[in-house]
Amino acid sequence: MHHSRLCAVLIDCKTSDVDEAARFWAKALGRAVDPTPPDELIVEIQRVDHESRVHLDIETDDIPAEVARLETLGAKVLSRLRRWVVMEAPTGQRFCVVRVQRPGFPKNANRWD
Amino acid sequence: MHHSRLCAVLIDCKTSDVDEAARFWAKALGRAVDPTPPDELIVEIQRVDHESRVHLDIETDDIPAEVARLETLGAKVLSRLRRWVVMEAPTGQRFCVVRVQRPGFPKNANRWD
Repeated sequence: MHHSRLCAVLIDCKTSDVDEAARFWAKALGRAVDPTPPDELIVEIQRVDHESRVHLDIETDDIPAEVARLETLGAKVLSRLRRWVVMEAPTGQRFCVVRVQRPGFPKNANRWD
Repeated sequence: MHHSRLCAVLIDCKTSDVDEAARFWAKALGRAVDPTPPDELIVEIQRVDHESRVHLDIETDDIPAEVARLETLGAKVLSRLRRWVVMEAPTGQRFCVVRVQRPGFPKNANRWD
């Protein structure tokens, strides 16, 4: 038995100045981009070398079990890092499976037996 | 004076079978992908002809005023449709400015004078 839930929207920015990117997004969304209120999804800005995009994080108390569950749904593992796993959905979007990040876990998470 | 807030994560899918895509994402995230609980961001699946990606929606009670505000932050208008406006952030991500979608507006939104 393990739990998981959608936990973050990551705004990946191909830029040399991630602080400037964070300023734009914080003002555009009218909120801190990191940290955020506990009842909302986390919104984070990060500098990347690939093209700019947005991606989702799924948090879980059992990363191997959650990755296995997502594989049975058709997702593929792209890379296993020490603290998270990068996966690709059948529809092509990349997303990450990460450790628990937000308050209220596992009460407000999905339970998978 | 107008209000706005981040309202949705849109999972754009380049696929001929958007129902199958919706099934994957609903099971992966353990939640309905549309509609959603009122206290959470909306997660929607839509079929697109461009590459699959994820994008953000910002909801507002005054689309022209919000678009003008975002332009002063450096965002550009890509297309003005009848019901929403597609914009591009300085960091390259596309996002949409839309009419109010979620409950709790404008109490829980940002106010711009």
